[in-house]
Parts: sequence; C-alpha cells; structure tokens
Amino acid sequence: MKATKTIISTLREAPNDAVIASHQLMMRSGLIRKLGNGLYAYMPFGFRSLMKVEKIIREELDNAGLLEIKPTVIVPGDLWKESGRWDKMAGEMLTAQNRQGQDMVVSPTAEEAFTAIVRDGLSSYKQLPFTLYQINTKYRDEIRPRYGVMRGREFTMMDAYSFDKDQADLDASYDNVAAAYRRIFKRMGLTTISVKADTGSMGGSGSEEFMVESEVGDDTLLLCPDCDYAANVEKAACKTEVPLDSNGQPQKKTDAAIEEVATPNVFSIEDMEKFFGEKPTTFLKALVYKVYNCAVDLSGTEFYKNAQTVTEGGQTYIPETFFCVLIRGDLDVNETKLAAELKASGAELASDEDVLKYSGAPHGFVGPVGIKIPVIADKSTVDMHDCIAGAGKAGFHIKHVEPGRDFTPFMTLDVRTCKEGDACPECGGKFYMKKGNELGHIFKLGTKYTKSMNVTYLGESGKPVTPLMGCYGIGVDRTLASIIEGHHDDKGIIWPMTVAPYQLAVIPVQYKDKMKEVADKIYEDLKADGIEVILDDRNERPGVKFTDSELIGYPIRIVVGDKNLPNVEMKLRQDAEATLVPADEVAKKAADIVREELKKLNA
Amino acid sequence: MKATKTIISTLREAPNDAVIASHQLMMRSGLIRKLGNGLYAYMPFGFRSLMKVEKIIREELDNAGLLEIKPTVIVPGDLWKESGRWDKMAGEMLTAQNRQGQDMVVSPTAEEAFTAIVRDGLSSYKQLPFTLYQINTKYRDEIRPRYGVMRGREFTMMDAYSFDKDQADLDASYDNVAAAYRRIFKRMGLTTISVKADTGSMGGSGSEEFMVESEVGDDTLLLCPDCDYAANVEKAACKTEVPLDSNGQPQKKTDAAIEEVATPNVFSIEDMEKFFGEKPTTFLKALVYKVYNCAVDLSGTEFYKNAQTVTEGGQTYIPETFFCVLIRGDLDVNETKLAAELKASGAELASDEDVLKYSGAPHGFVGPVGIKIPVIADKSTVDMHDCIAGAGKAGFHIKHVEPGRDFTPFMTLDVRTCKEGDACPECGGKFYMKKGNELGHIFKLGTKYTKSMNVTYLGESGKPVTPLMGCYGIGVDRTLASIIEGHHDDKGIIWPMTVAPYQLAVIPVQYKDKMKEVADKIYEDLKADGIEVILDDRNERPGVKFTDSELIGYPIRIVVGDKNLPNVEMKLRQDAEATLVPADEVAKKAADIVREELKKLNA
Repeated sequence: MKATKTIISTLREAPNDAVIASHQLMMRSGLIRKLGNGLYAYMPFGFRSLMKVEKIIREELDNAGLLEIKPTVIVPGDLWKESGRWDKMAGEMLTAQNRQGQDMVVSPTAEEAFTAIVRDGLSSYKQLPFTLYQINTKYRDEIRPRYGVMRGREFTMMDAYSFDKDQADLDASYDNVAAAYRRIFKRMGLTTISVKADTGSMGGSGSEEFMVESEVGDDTLLLCPDCDYAANVEKAACKTEVPLDSNGQPQKKTDAAIEEVATPNVFSIEDMEKFFGEKPTTFLKALVYKVYNCAVDLSGTEFYKNAQTVTEGGQTYIPETFFCVLIRGDLDVNETKLAAELKASGAELASDEDVLKYSGAPHGFVGPVGIKIPVIADKSTVDMHDCIAGAGKAGFHIKHVEPGRDFTPFMTLDVRTCKEGDACPECGGKFYMKKGNELGHIFKLGTKYTKSMNVTYLGESGKPVTPLMGCYGIGVDRTLASIIEGHHDDKGIIWPMTVAPYQLAVIPVQYKDKMKEVADKIYEDLKADGIEVILDDRNERPGVKFTDSELIGYPIRIVVGDKNLPNVEMKLRQDAEATLVPADEVAKKAADIVREELKKLNA
Repeated sequence: MKATKTIISTLREAPNDAVIASHQLMMRSGLIRKLGNGLYAYMPFGFRSLMKVEKIIREELDNAGLLEIKPTVIVPGDLWKESGRWDKMAGEMLTAQNRQGQDMVVSPTAEEAFTAIVRDGLSSYKQLPFTLYQINTKYRDEIRPRYGVMRGREFTMMDAYSFDKDQADLDASYDNVAAAYRRIFKRMGLTTISVKADTGSMGGSGSEEFMVESEVGDDTLLLCPDCDYAANVEKAACKTEVPLDSNGQPQKKTDAAIEEVATPNVFSIEDMEKFFGEKPTTFLKALVYKVYNCAVDLSGTEFYKNAQTVTEGGQTYIPETFFCVLIRGDLDVNETKLAAELKASGAELASDEDVLKYSGAPHGFVGPVGIKIPVIADKSTVDMHDCIAGAGKAGFHIKHVEPGRDFTPFMTLDVRTCKEGDACPECGGKFYMKKGNELGHIFKLGTKYTKSMNVTYLGESGKPVTPLMGCYGIGVDRTLASIIEGHHDDKGIIWPMTVAPYQLAVIPVQYKDKMKEVADKIYEDLKADGIEVILDDRNERPGVKFTDSELIGYPIRIVVGDKNLPNVEMKLRQDAEATLVPADEVAKKAADIVREELKKLNA
C-alpha cells in the first residue's frame, strides 16, 4: 500500500483525556478517532491490527473445534426477563423501546441469546457437547469510560458458550478453551497471568481470568512466589493463621463468664486497642450487612420464618436480608466474597438506621451474643477464644466471649480480604501484589441459564435433562490496547509481527529519481513476496516520515537514501541501530525476518 | 469438518411466517434461527456463507482502493441532530438514552459517523480523494419485518463514503464503486439490473440501485427493451406524449371563454368521462398535496409571503406547505417524484379539511383557475388545450380551460407515475415491468452532510472548501438471501461455489467398515487439497443424509456405498444424474471441479 493511498494522520500530542500509553499512542498514531464518550472508530491502520487480533482468536478457536455463529447485537428484552437479569443488569445495559413498545437490549453479553438459540434446536444428548462463539459488538453503559478502547462503552468481544451433558464434559470444554486462550495470547506477544476470579453477577462456579500485568490495571492480583497460585483480590483466599493473643500465643479457652464493660467512647478497633490494652487479633469485629437477592437457604433461622421469598427462573431468593458478619479484629470483610458465598447479587454495610434496628446497637457496639439476625463467622474467628466484642447495646463492650459457648454462627465462611503478605492457600508462600488488566475470562456457569430459560434435552435414559453451560470471553479491543501497553517505547509502538498493521515500511528519503526507482523496486518485490508493506511516497520531510514510522511502529523499516546507495538501511523497530544492506538483497532479507518472526510467535 | 462435530439441524417444514423461498430454505437448512421479530441468528453453516459474501465484498473494495474502518454501531444522537436527520429518521431509528441522559442511536446508516470521523482529520486538499467503508451491524426499526433476513430489523451492511474535491472526482469515485459492485455480484453468481433510483431521505443527486429480479421484490422496475434504460418506478421518467383530444387528434387551442357547468354528482375521472362524453386526456386533474420540509424557493409566491421557514444545517425549508398538482386526467401523480422535485422530505394528499381550506372546493372539484396556492403542473399538461377542470367550488366544473391564459403554473415538473407501455425517455422503446430487490445502492450526495456538519479543508487556493461526498451501500444479508432466491429447486439450495458453506459433502451410506475407510480417505485427501468438505459421519439413515445434502445444497456430493465400491457416486447439486468414479480418483476430480467453478465465478 502506498502511503498516499491510505490515511496516515499522526498527531504530535495526545489529547488531554489520554492518560495511559496505549490510549495516547493509538490516538497519536491515528489508529483510532474518538466518536463520543467511550466510543472510538478504528481507522484503516487500527482496523488492520484489530482484524489480525480477531483472526488469531478465530483460528485458535476454530482449531479447538468451537463453532462460530452470529446472533444479533440487539436482542429482545424478554430474553433478559426470562433469565432474571433484566433488573440486575439495569443501568449497565443500554435499552430501548421499539415502535411496538417492546423492550430491546443492546447486548452487553450474550448468555441469554446463546441459550435461546440452543434451546431452539437441542433435542437429544447425541447433539452434545458443543461450544459456540461469536466475535461481535457489545455495549456497556460505563459510567466513566476511560483509557480509550481499554474501557470503552462499545467494544468487540469474543464470547463463547459451551453446552455439556455433565460436569466432566464441562470441565473438558473449559480446559479446551483455556488452552486455546493460552495459544491466542502467546501468538500476539502477550504474557498472561491466569488467576482465579470472582464470578460476580454472572453466577456459577469455577472461573479464571487471563490478566496482563499493567500499571494502570483495573484489577489487583495476589500472586504466590512459590507456586502458580494467582487470584484477583476480589476472590483470593489465603490460609487462616492460628489467632494469637496479645502476647503472640495461641488464644486459650476461658471459663470466665461474659463481663460487660462500659465503653462510652470506644467506637473503632483503634479505640478498643487503646481502651482494653489488647491486640486487635483478640477482638471479634461484628458488622451488619445488607445483602441483596440472597439465595442461601435461610429456612432454618428463626429470624427468617416470615421472610418473603421470590422464585424466579427456578431460583428462590430473598430480595433483602441482613446478616451480622464476624471477623477477626485485624482483618477486613471482602464484600464480593461475602456476596458470592451467600449466592447473592451484592452486599453492603447496612445503614445506621438498619444497624440499630437489626442488631439493637449502633455501629461500633454490635456484637454476636444474643443478636437476632444470623451470624456469619469468617474462618479467621474459628479458633478465637476469650475475645472482646461489642455488647449489642450502645456504650458497652463485653469481655471473655467464647465462640460456641456464647453464640453459634449460622454459617462459617471465607469472607476476608486477603492482602500482600498473607499466606498462599496452596503452599503457604507469602503473597505479593500486581496490578493487572483482564483480557479473557472463563466460567463454569452450570445450569444457571439453562434452568432459568428452560433448556432441556432427552438424555440417554429418555428423560429430559438440563445441560450445563460454560461461558468464555475475550475483550478484543482491550487485547489490542494491552499489546501496545506491553510493546512500546517513548517514540511509539513496537508491534509484534503478528498484529502489526503493516509488517514493513519502505521509506525513500525523497520520492524521486534513483531513490524512487530503488524504493519502488523493493516495494514491488516485497509485495510480490506476500509481505504487508507500506511505501512512504508522501511528499514530506524525511524527519516526518521517520518519526511517523517509529510512532506507528512498523516492525521493520527500510530507508532508501542517496548517500547510502547502492546500499539501503534496514532497521528493526526494537533495535537501536540500522544495518546497511545491498538494495537488491534487502527485500529477501527483510521478508525472511518477517516470516521467521511470524513463525516464532505462531509456534 | 465432520458432521458430528458441527451443528446440522434441518427441518422438514418451514415455519409459518416464512413465505418466500430463501426464508423457507434458510430456516429449513438450519442456516439461521429466529431470535425475535426481524432478528435472526446465523448458525455455523449460515455464518460461513455470510462470511464468504463479506469476503468477496471486502476483496473487491480493497482492490478498488477503498479503505476499511470501523466506527461504532452506537453513535451519539448529537451527530444526527447536527445533520438535521434526528427528526426525519425518527421511528425508523432505534434510540436510547444512556445513564447520563444522552441520546444514543443504533446506526441505521452512517453518513453522520463517517462525516464526523473525516471532519476530525481532514485539513488539506492533498488528503483527498478517499473512500472509506465498513461492513458492520445496522438496525432499522421496520414496522413489519418480513422475508427472514431479506428485510430484518438488524442486518449487516457494507456502507462506503467517498470524499472528493470536485464533481469530476466524485464522478470517478462513484464509477469506481459501481465497477466494484458489478464484480462483487458477478462473483456470487448474481445478475443485477442497474437502475436509476429515487434518492429519498438521503438527499443528493445521482443515484443508482443494483437490483436482482425477484418475484417477491419490494421494488417495481421499468425497463426498456431497446436500450439499457432501467429505473425504479419511484423515479422512472418517460417521454411526454402529445396530448390528444377525444378524437385522437392533438388538442387545439380554443378562443372560447371558460364556461361553468353544474356537475353536482361528478366526483371522479370516470364520472367526468360519462358526464362530458370526453376522454380523460382532455381533463386537467387537480389535487391538493401537503408537502413536508419543502426546500424549493417559494419566496416569489403571494401565498407564502408570511410562511415560516426553518434553517437547519445550512438549508432553508418550510416544514409544511400545500400545492395544487395538475396532471393529465389519465395519469397519476408519483408522490416520491413530487417530493424529490420539490426538495421535500415527503408529500401526501391533503386531508378533506385542508383541500377545502386551500383550494376553496372539496376534492373532485378542485381546479387550477384562481386557486391561491402554487400550482405545480406536470409536464403532461404542457401542450393541453381546451380542457375540462374542476371549477374550484363544490358542484361545478369548467370547460374551455386554456393553460397559460386561465392560469399560470408556478413550476412545471415531471411528477407522473410511469408504467408499463410508456415510452423510454432515452429511445422511446415501450417499457416492460419487473419486480426486483435492491442489493446495492450508490449515491452522489454532494455537500449535504459536509455542509450541515461543517467539514472543510484548505483548498489549493488556501481557502476553506467543502468536500463532496458519495455514499454506497450493499445489504449483506439480503445479498445472501437473494443468492438463494436465484439458486434453488424444490429440494433445496443450489449454492454457487464461491458462497457455499462447504464446497463438498462426502456421504458414506453407513459410516462403518469399508465404507468408513473409503470415505475417511476421500475426506482427508480433499481436506489436504484445501477443499472445504463435510464428512457426514452421522448415525442417520442414508435417506436423511441425502435429503439434508440436497436441502443444504453442497455443490458436490460424493456417496460411498457398498454396492458401488470400488467406485463411488459423484453428483453435482445442479445435475439430475450422478456419475460413477473410482474411489481413488474422485478426490482429485472433485477438487478440480471446485477450483474450476471458483475460477469461473471469480474471473
């Protein structure tokens, strides 16, 4: 392609709203242009790289036996009402009413559409398993879109959905996609960290995120230096330490009865430490949480005898419940883990009013003894003894509290926020932290959607069976941006060969006379050899052409200048120095480098 | 691909709402599944053919020098307000408000987005000309979606936009795309008719539609048997005949003064014929039209001295105007042509109330003499003399009306509906009629969008210049459906080789023993030779496999049966008879046919 026949439109300065390298470089090199808040158009060069990312994804998924289909981007809201996500996804989904007054959804994800499509044709166990995918437009109404295409409102997503007979098949489908992901990211020159993740509003169990390390990452990861454990802080588990008393010894059971202490000015853990002269590891921190759409069976509890339940899509839940969450005084509750453990859509600290109403005490004096709402004990409290806790009435704490004797938790769960230095649950290694960006995600959904949307097939026994589902996603734009985050210097992008918009640029210092003749010949030879090459035939100063070539990041550059002829300069983008190569040999030499580099990445 | 590894899900019966062959066959062969009203998901086989259609479009446009980009599907409503189409496209556009309360549009077309993208980077005449395109999702909120993907709500469209310095460049860009279109459709086995078309709400001048003949076509075409003139009836022009009197002689001027005749029961042309004993060619039919957003300059007319005008996007128009349209009694007014000639967004017969208010007479008695609203005379009235017309008051007609003497038209325009038998405007040949479906459309837009959206570049003179635009579209889904409309029999689809989901099917009568061994070998040989082949390894009765293969329409079928071994049957889908070929020769033979057929279509 000749430069004058395409659009090369570079900028010296990135716009003010571009604060991360990939956003700045994509704007400056003209890969994208802004169409609106969180909306970017890919220009010819950006489009080429985006298509290469898509092609790699497609090739690996096809090779792995996945089947590509194309549902619509706009789907009937009724499907989302059927699955029970219409309300849950409100706000994040862009919805519209059509002329008939029917609700329509601009797909933010496509579990519903794929489930409906499969429901339409599935009859027998003989048809299973299969995994369908699409690479298609998605839209999420991000409140604060940022970082260019890294977190835009409209984006391209590869989303796949497996349909399986049983857990073993689901596990195999999941592993199959995971293996394809590893090949996909490797081919693009990306090193990913595979981490356990929270399943969030997607539901289901078993999920993994494919993250790339990034200083501007949205996610915080905890990694073990001694084994391959890695987890999003939202989901990370860690070993529970033996709780120590203020002398650093394991806590010992007490026979002393509970003792009430007037603590009118003691509100926080720090206040308690000061007042009692004890370490926070001896305190039972009690917090009242409001939990939304909790699907854990609470029928055994006194408090919930009269609770209203909602049954939707085959699942019974209580729209709003309150729990007293108990955790060791030096630790914090992870609301995401709490919600996940309670099979809930969300959890948040109760309002002052609700705290008083449900615990009998204001915040700071809540305690587990005699409380009417169910107590959820974090695992960190399991071996605690002789503790100090809120008394359950304003202005008082209690001492010598013995879990098991003085109160019985309704459930003991892992709801603590793990942090740097905590012990790896696999091997005990001490966690370190990284920031990361999620590129891909894989989930075992189970029957969440197939049940709520009534998908069944005739099993071998002749009886209807509900298939299991897995779902798998890769953010295509974000992957492209992450490649640039990981491959650039202060001059511009350094494209991996597999995803460069063009593999090579031929730059005549001036496009005339002998230089034109030589450049044209090299260009034609490379084209004939199947190399994707730009001939910079623009009537621009050489400095502009060189700067542009570094900003745009062609992996190889060949400069044809009078003073070097009959040699030309060949330079790899990542190298500091150019080498002189005879003009009549350079095309073959460069083409070999392109092919070698492709082979290495695609291996 | 082995049949058991993909999804083959055929139906015996098409659903009730499928009334045309392509819709029926696409549903029955499992190419698509319905997701909602006017919303179809492409399944693996359908997706493959759709991608082949896209690939052919992409290759030809890239070869023609067009540049592919990717704007977003969802665009800010503000762009549509800027161009002045927000209101005009209301209803047809699906719109939504985001969380910030901003209007967003699901793109029904993308003039605004492309204009905004180009505005963002265009500075100098040196950058022009260029033509950008996308192949992307569109949505139109069709009131009555029908015919499957032929007229769905969501669809894939190739839309291209050229940006040019001057009319000569625009003409060249337009011709370049037109030539690419012809290659595109030819490669898919489609014969298109190129017709002049109405530009509708798109504005601009100069447009052509690429139609395929179809019994279920949405459009009516008038074609000349003697030259290559072809036009959509919405736009077709024809030669104006000399108006004849009731004796078949050219009408002659009269000196007789107007004579009023009481005609209390004469309302229609038929009534007039009976009452006056004259032919309708001697009647001046006068109709009152309500015209929307008329941009024709009416400042000279008495009636519009006080009319309110709106200026938007650089264009001044009157939101609602009324005209008296005059046409020869045997002809009908074409409202689309009328609106186009008046640079209006639409025209419709005025209500009874408005007819009376603006003409002074009820419908049936309207006449051109003394009327207060401007008279638009169709060209058919130009040489009319001694005519009969409505008197402009209830219950009366007038005789001896002389155009020019008794009234003066404000404008004389071509607003008549042409029909079969009318004379070709180019050569006088007599029109015949065809039904057609529009696959592609090309327009010369001029400065409609660049002006309203303030796009300029620095011209050679150093002064800002507004570029000209052309726009070009191909309906991708509709093209696929049209291929099936044109290539099927009562058993199923007969795919052209270039767009078949798979080029060949190998069908072992039973997938076991020797038949399995031979079929596997042929399958592997064909795959190794680059042929897209399905091996029907399903445990189904042979009849089911044969019926499916004809329904799905693989261009070539190889049947491996015990009784013919060591020969196998090879049959082209379009042929009635199979031939016996030695099993060890069939792969090469079939591959040669595939390649030959591809070569022929792609030539």
